[in-house]
Amino acid sequence: MSNATLTRHPAQPAAVGGPDLARRFARSARVTDSWVTSNDHLDTWLAEQHRANRFSVTPIPFSGLRGWRFRPGTGNLTHDSGRFFSIEGLHVRTDFEGGGDWSQPIINQPEIGILGLLVKEFDGVPHFLMQAKMEPGNVNTIQLSPTVQATRSNYTGVHGGRPIDYLEFFTDRSRAAVLVDVLQSEQGSWFLRKRNRNMVVETTGEVPEHPDFRWLTLGQIHRLLQRDNVINMDARTVLSCIPRLPDGDGDEIGDDPDRYRAALRASLSPSVWALHTDAHILHWLTDLKSRHEMVQRQDGLDTVKGWHRDDHQIAHESGRYFRVIATEVHAGNREVPAWTQPLVQPVERGVSAFLTRPIGGVTHLLVHARAEAGSRDVVELAPTVQLQPGNYAGLPPERVPRYREEALRPDPARLRYDTVQSEEGGRFYHAENRSMIIDVGEGFPLETPPEFCWMTPRQMSALLRHSYYVSIQARSLFAGLLSLA
Amino acid sequence: MSNATLTRHPAQPAAVGGPDLARRFARSARVTDSWVTSNDHLDTWLAEQHRANRFSVTPIPFSGLRGWRFRPGTGNLTHDSGRFFSIEGLHVRTDFEGGGDWSQPIINQPEIGILGLLVKEFDGVPHFLMQAKMEPGNVNTIQLSPTVQATRSNYTGVHGGRPIDYLEFFTDRSRAAVLVDVLQSEQGSWFLRKRNRNMVVETTGEVPEHPDFRWLTLGQIHRLLQRDNVINMDARTVLSCIPRLPDGDGDEIGDDPDRYRAALRASLSPSVWALHTDAHILHWLTDLKSRHEMVQRQDGLDTVKGWHRDDHQIAHESGRYFRVIATEVHAGNREVPAWTQPLVQPVERGVSAFLTRPIGGVTHLLVHARAEAGSRDVVELAPTVQLQPGNYAGLPPERVPRYREEALRPDPARLRYDTVQSEEGGRFYHAENRSMIIDVGEGFPLETPPEFCWMTPRQMSALLRHSYYVSIQARSLFAGLLSLA
Repeated sequence: MSNATLTRHPAQPAAVGGPDLARRFARSARVTDSWVTSNDHLDTWLAEQHRANRFSVTPIPFSGLRGWRFRPGTGNLTHDSGRFFSIEGLHVRTDFEGGGDWSQPIINQPEIGILGLLVKEFDGVPHFLMQAKMEPGNVNTIQLSPTVQATRSNYTGVHGGRPIDYLEFFTDRSRAAVLVDVLQSEQGSWFLRKRNRNMVVETTGEVPEHPDFRWLTLGQIHRLLQRDNVINMDARTVLSCIPRLPDGDGDEIGDDPDRYRAALRASLSPSVWALHTDAHILHWLTDLKSRHEMVQRQDGLDTVKGWHRDDHQIAHESGRYFRVIATEVHAGNREVPAWTQPLVQPVERGVSAFLTRPIGGVTHLLVHARAEAGSRDVVELAPTVQLQPGNYAGLPPERVPRYREEALRPDPARLRYDTVQSEEGGRFYHAENRSMIIDVGEGFPLETPPEFCWMTPRQMSALLRHSYYVSIQARSLFAGLLSLA
Repeated sequence: MSNATLTRHPAQPAAVGGPDLARRFARSARVTDSWVTSNDHLDTWLAEQHRANRFSVTPIPFSGLRGWRFRPGTGNLTHDSGRFFSIEGLHVRTDFEGGGDWSQPIINQPEIGILGLLVKEFDGVPHFLMQAKMEPGNVNTIQLSPTVQATRSNYTGVHGGRPIDYLEFFTDRSRAAVLVDVLQSEQGSWFLRKRNRNMVVETTGEVPEHPDFRWLTLGQIHRLLQRDNVINMDARTVLSCIPRLPDGDGDEIGDDPDRYRAALRASLSPSVWALHTDAHILHWLTDLKSRHEMVQRQDGLDTVKGWHRDDHQIAHESGRYFRVIATEVHAGNREVPAWTQPLVQPVERGVSAFLTRPIGGVTHLLVHARAEAGSRDVVELAPTVQLQPGNYAGLPPERVPRYREEALRPDPARLRYDTVQSEEGGRFYHAENRSMIIDVGEGFPLETPPEFCWMTPRQMSALLRHSYYVSIQARSLFAGLLSLA
């Protein structure tokens, strides 16, 4: 850093953050159709995008990968440029539930990417610029992603692709004001300490049109969140970080004929009662991190035990968990037209569920402090239940995750949210979760095992201002919960 | 975790946190002498502790260590039990200022220890139970530590020592209410991702007396923070995490004849103006972490380049930075009477300084986002200047840290705080810093290099509720700043 790089950080007007911002987003959530992009047009455009974009993803042997190879000495699968990501080995020792001593392949990607939503007001209503984006691992080729979804390799041009559309709004502070900017973790079972930058920026300037992008209100995005596999993981995590406030005043909320929605809206209010103080929740998390042991040791992929590698896959000898495969990808509107890459493929569809119940008339989520192999700091707040059912087949009851039965056999009358959503299609192949919010009602026991805690949506939203409190799976489901409010 | 371990987290009354807590601590800060432990008694007791406790620390060859050895294959220096800590190798690549590519020895201690202060009200005034504690690395044998200062090895009894006094107040929730409980990092240049648990708990029950412990008000502790090497590092970090509010109402503040103190008190108010919004500060930090590269790779101590090891030390070939040495320790009131251990010894006394200036009548600190070898997440907020002067001798101006001259040759009239404080004596041998707060005044430029930002004490205090924002050096100096309010 030379002395010549002096700069003054521009102070933003206070109005861009805080309650005003949350109220403006609540207004956007109330608008469920918009002349900017009408729902009719949106559905037609999405169908066209699916038709027009050809995309083929073919499994190939590892020896068919171009630019990727298993390194002598470690066995790590890396790219010749030293960039993108690598598949390495991780050894874990923990005394957490379901813990023990194990090793596994893990994706190492130290770079921080941008997941960025561009906002602009039309007629006083904030709209979000969403991108129809193809990813090789998607079950349905195209999902709606944030405006910008770029690894550092992408935006520094390491792979020689074309420039990223709209990136300048996220990197040039004269183009847009920053509303949200926070690092958040990604899947701890598959990534080593991975995180991305979740950004929301707002512009009042001209934004060029692009055939793959459309402006949507939060209300329109909430409608799409009720469908399977439309809003991608990267969009869901950014949406979860947007500050929210209940729409309308107290009377309106009380009059809502939908009692679940009424309680949920009330529970977002900053002044609402909660079972536990914020200080208690921070203490509970610190206590769990401190009392338990969680030791991670990086080592070569060759040192991983219980996993078998041939030229077509790296898989666990039990057939559980996930496989690492190699693929060849031909795409239309991606930055580069054809490439090969490794992908991680879970062996089955997962289940991800938040149990919610009213406590004193206020919606509370039952949150699980979950330790994962690649966690940055022992545990993060996860959904009540997050599992692949087959991993626990035939195990005795004490080895099975808590609340599994509530999630695997939910009472249909209590299902407030039930969709299939995908993990990120740039690293994961056909990785889907049945994503549920289950209202277990006032009869459900308040007592929990020590790794669980009831908290309000307002409390979770406050933690989302900071990094590494809330896991990607919890953020994804939380976006679903907010879409019900 | 079995189903039998059901528990309900007790909800704390809201009164223990928030403004009420901060007001109670402000009251304690106003009491500068107390009948519980009078200042006269305190000084006599401290002198007695220094006289009564014999302590010898003798450098020995590494081959004289008992239970510690360099492991074949890696060269790592570890304990036979696999506990405590180890000295390993770390390779770092970064494009931050003063960065590049280097490797170094680093202390690896994955366990989380407790640094805990016990609080109890006497006549309505919160008092803190401080311990006169010997540490092998202390220049003066004894300093005042928190009530409990225990590694996980300590409190799980791995080393077979005696039980930790007062530990039950921090582990048994029926004994005390939790006021502060947050993980915070330690020295990133010497530790790999190390953190400890900073706790403040309050009891209304009986607390047994102990000759090595005394109850002090915050006002008394602030008085001791003006002296060299009395309040140890572990106490300073916990003190920095205590929520504060200005004492008295606005009129009182305005009438304070000490204008620096008046501005400082005003700047702790939650409603006070700040140059940058909280959202901007979070964005600035996220942006720095994302734009820069910082890759850490753990490897054996044998792989470290530029460092020389003989039977008496591991040292850099330039004579700079620090040395790893072995010591034999004979102590009186430690948990175990005699032991050997490695210690890290900096080659010279460091300098640590916050520049402060009023902006619109409100005190602002000039904070440096500093990348250190063992950082958990690229950078943390550090003092304006933090260096060992000798590391930069003879370097051209563009390689020298910013604001160095202001800290090395401060105007005595502008020095608001100037003491010598020590790093933790359990790992570091005679590691001292000249610790300064320098009021640079309204003429000082507001423009900063991109790695620096002005923020108010209130903004820093708010970030201290969460982990890994503020470095140990900044927390230590911040405790000094708060002692001036």
